[in-house]
Amino acid sequence: MSEYGTLQDRVRHKSLLSKVMTAEETIQFFKPGMNLGWSGFTPAGYPKVVPIAVADHVEKNNLQGKWKFNLFIGASVGAETEDRWASLDMIDRRWPYQTGKNIAAGINEGRIRMGDKHLSLFAQDLGYGFYTKDTESGRLDLAIIEVSAITEDGSLVPTSSCGVIPEILMICDKIIIEVNTGEPSFEGIHDLVSCGTPPNRQVLNITKAGSRIGSTSIPCDPKKVVAVVESKLRDQGRAFAEQDDTSEAIANHIIDFFTQEVKMGRLPDNLLPIQSGVGSIANAVIGGLAKGPFYNLSVYTEVLQDTMLDLFDSGKLDHASSCSLSLSATPGFPKFFENMDKYFDKITLRPLSISNAPEPIRRLGVIAMNTPVEIDIYAHANSTLVGGTRMINGLGGSGDFLRNGFLKMMHTPSSRPSKTDPTGISCVVPHCSHIDHTEHDLDCVVTEQGLADLRGLCPRDRAKVIIDKCAHPDYKPILTEYFEMAKADCLRRKVGHEPQLWDRAFKMHLNLEKNGTMKIKNWDMKVDLCE
Amino acid sequence: MSEYGTLQDRVRHKSLLSKVMTAEETIQFFKPGMNLGWSGFTPAGYPKVVPIAVADHVEKNNLQGKWKFNLFIGASVGAETEDRWASLDMIDRRWPYQTGKNIAAGINEGRIRMGDKHLSLFAQDLGYGFYTKDTESGRLDLAIIEVSAITEDGSLVPTSSCGVIPEILMICDKIIIEVNTGEPSFEGIHDLVSCGTPPNRQVLNITKAGSRIGSTSIPCDPKKVVAVVESKLRDQGRAFAEQDDTSEAIANHIIDFFTQEVKMGRLPDNLLPIQSGVGSIANAVIGGLAKGPFYNLSVYTEVLQDTMLDLFDSGKLDHASSCSLSLSATPGFPKFFENMDKYFDKITLRPLSISNAPEPIRRLGVIAMNTPVEIDIYAHANSTLVGGTRMINGLGGSGDFLRNGFLKMMHTPSSRPSKTDPTGISCVVPHCSHIDHTEHDLDCVVTEQGLADLRGLCPRDRAKVIIDKCAHPDYKPILTEYFEMAKADCLRRKVGHEPQLWDRAFKMHLNLEKNGTMKIKNWDMKVDLCE
Repeated sequence: MSEYGTLQDRVRHKSLLSKVMTAEETIQFFKPGMNLGWSGFTPAGYPKVVPIAVADHVEKNNLQGKWKFNLFIGASVGAETEDRWASLDMIDRRWPYQTGKNIAAGINEGRIRMGDKHLSLFAQDLGYGFYTKDTESGRLDLAIIEVSAITEDGSLVPTSSCGVIPEILMICDKIIIEVNTGEPSFEGIHDLVSCGTPPNRQVLNITKAGSRIGSTSIPCDPKKVVAVVESKLRDQGRAFAEQDDTSEAIANHIIDFFTQEVKMGRLPDNLLPIQSGVGSIANAVIGGLAKGPFYNLSVYTEVLQDTMLDLFDSGKLDHASSCSLSLSATPGFPKFFENMDKYFDKITLRPLSISNAPEPIRRLGVIAMNTPVEIDIYAHANSTLVGGTRMINGLGGSGDFLRNGFLKMMHTPSSRPSKTDPTGISCVVPHCSHIDHTEHDLDCVVTEQGLADLRGLCPRDRAKVIIDKCAHPDYKPILTEYFEMAKADCLRRKVGHEPQLWDRAFKMHLNLEKNGTMKIKNWDMKVDLCE
Repeated sequence: MSEYGTLQDRVRHKSLLSKVMTAEETIQFFKPGMNLGWSGFTPAGYPKVVPIAVADHVEKNNLQGKWKFNLFIGASVGAETEDRWASLDMIDRRWPYQTGKNIAAGINEGRIRMGDKHLSLFAQDLGYGFYTKDTESGRLDLAIIEVSAITEDGSLVPTSSCGVIPEILMICDKIIIEVNTGEPSFEGIHDLVSCGTPPNRQVLNITKAGSRIGSTSIPCDPKKVVAVVESKLRDQGRAFAEQDDTSEAIANHIIDFFTQEVKMGRLPDNLLPIQSGVGSIANAVIGGLAKGPFYNLSVYTEVLQDTMLDLFDSGKLDHASSCSLSLSATPGFPKFFENMDKYFDKITLRPLSISNAPEPIRRLGVIAMNTPVEIDIYAHANSTLVGGTRMINGLGGSGDFLRNGFLKMMHTPSSRPSKTDPTGISCVVPHCSHIDHTEHDLDCVVTEQGLADLRGLCPRDRAKVIIDKCAHPDYKPILTEYFEMAKADCLRRKVGHEPQLWDRAFKMHLNLEKNGTMKIKNWDMKVDLCE
């Protein structure tokens, strides 16, 4: 018997106990070509034993490339599931976010058809049937949902994330439930609502990070449940990204900026709810807040990382709302489970369609902070495609928060190493090779060099401030020369609202490809159209 | 006495009658460098006699270039005001949208510093003081508001648009009021709310296009009012854009698509609230709906054009919500005024911060339709900058609706004429020269050639469908060749999620600049980095 209670304890709708089976026995429900909907969001709350059993089945029976599925999941899930499926050529379509070497390779080599979308839109559009409309059933054929418990009326209690469970339940035909008895139950931490379909969508009456508008479980028709499987596997978790000097410098610029905004009366003393992405800079910012001058903070975001527990421990964070608890396997999750009574009431886990909904994000006035691949001198940002063509993970919720926040900020090191040059890649470029967020969405750009406050500036003024405050010193003269040259040329031709020269806007990118660095010697360029 | 009542009738807060003066007498309140906030949205509801008097003053006294102002207005206003100001070099900064030859010239020649932003964000950020923070006063120095009436308690009743009046009143120091007695009063048509500042922003409890959540006038501190001026000038209005074969073909594709979506159960019989941009295609779509099979329609949009009156007349439109009534000077406005009792209760005019707020747009499930400058094969869209550098009007609310709608559609002719070639400009290009809306925002692209339904497709699949369904026949082989070439190259290099070739992605644009057409003979290109 598990220390966290038995399967019989967790499955309170007793008729469903008749559906208990092993993971291997669920193979019967899978057919190649099916549309699958999984619980999970970032490597948290995803099904494990069933996807692993299906992968084992494919491997054992040499079904690689023959058993392929369309995977719809709130965001990425553990590498032992989706990335292994990719390595076994089991994925045809994948929406809207992923993590893993094999799945990324499949996408960029053309074997896996991935699409990404603002996560809040993905959630609603999935529920509207937009992603499955051209497939055989037109619906999700099979859902695999990890839960902490099934209530007396058959409702599902999720685990460490809510993802798109409500939308999956709206449009799926059959459901496999994984009941996780390998960890304490999360019952009570969630605030679950199914948004529904227009014209009957409801008002989301959230007025602070901790507002509760729903219930702690989500209704589910027991007749759709075809299997209940016990799992004792824990989330693989998100490895903690260490802070470095660069991320600390960025965090300091941000804390200074907040201090100034409070002083000018544009931010309250306890700031506004924080949204913070993942990675070392996000960790440094949260670390900076733990040491900083602001109290009674709140968080309204999509993922909570380990540092958020530290911010609670500092006594400065009152409440955190999120779609998932993306802690590290160690020390994050064990720390959380051992101190659940300390953290539990201060955290609300919401479905993606609510954690990322424009409605509460605008109303609350969230401070949005995310890291791009590159930004350009006019404040467009590339969040997804290296070199404009190679997918890393996906868009995630960056656009939900950047479009709707009170302050919309992007932070990045000013440069990154290329294979041959420690500062061979400038994160500030003349024109982004892919644009996920436009100049119309960003208020501030921050690098270790400084913070560019772009509010109220026209494009030409923005370019000056971004180059001056944010570019790496090695690239400042290069970018300045481009901007001055483009401006002179475009203003002369009376087309200079936002100056660019299309024969050379990508010279830095092309030079990186050819010579391993964006440090070009000059802006000369000979372009022959070869007519 | 005016046939629409006297100034004394309209100014019901009687102490303000002591502030009545001529437009010329308000010159005393203007100082160069001031931040001005005007009512108005698209050429509707803007102040007229005062801006014209200030322009006359500048012209008479040779103050061109010496009296310059920063103009913050909901959107464009009549050419007799902002465009004349631009011709007299009276504008330094201008946010967030404009219309007129002289003002566009000033922007693209570098004399006027314009910035554009999603209109819903512009409204809230203006109220937060973001646009005026670096100026001397840090606030709006002077507001000029056109009204139909001033109520007993000093509240203002706007005219044909609401624009950003609530936000202007939040942060302005002094107010000049123009009372328009040259047209009937609009009192009762508006639903006015001031959204406030976080953490105290309110829920917008709008659940259908006609929901009312506010009052018919907006509170105003009479102590701030420095002048009350009578005006008899009417809105210049928006000239009606005639439909042509291309726009009718586009409208037909859209009506067919709606019919199919209703049949598949993804849209209700009466569709969902319509947002429609301006111009000939928008007019054709509304015209198509007037003749089409759908009843009990509703509209939730930012501008109502003449065709909307026809849609009411057809008996198929139940209610329309908008930020402005942008009718033509003739026949639009006279028709509306002569039939006010027929239309009045079926129209709700809202402030920009509500007409364009993500919250009601998502909740209601608006069908968003707008026209871009160009779209690319992966469904990024350019809405603002011809050739990627020359500003036309501005972003407007396209992003508010496209990001938040139920269906997010862009419609455009597949080609436009260049100076020398009737189809010299392809509106479908390999890569947009400017990106205002990303691939993550669009569901459908429509040209007279056909409709591309992009829902659920990965970028490579999107490219095939867009080229196949939407590109002009002259450009289909050119675009196909580019896509196949880019795909082969990027997949070979294992970087092909969204294939592009940066040495030639803009060849069609460069060829247009050099040879007057995007019809290139081949995709050969010699690029010398000149190291």
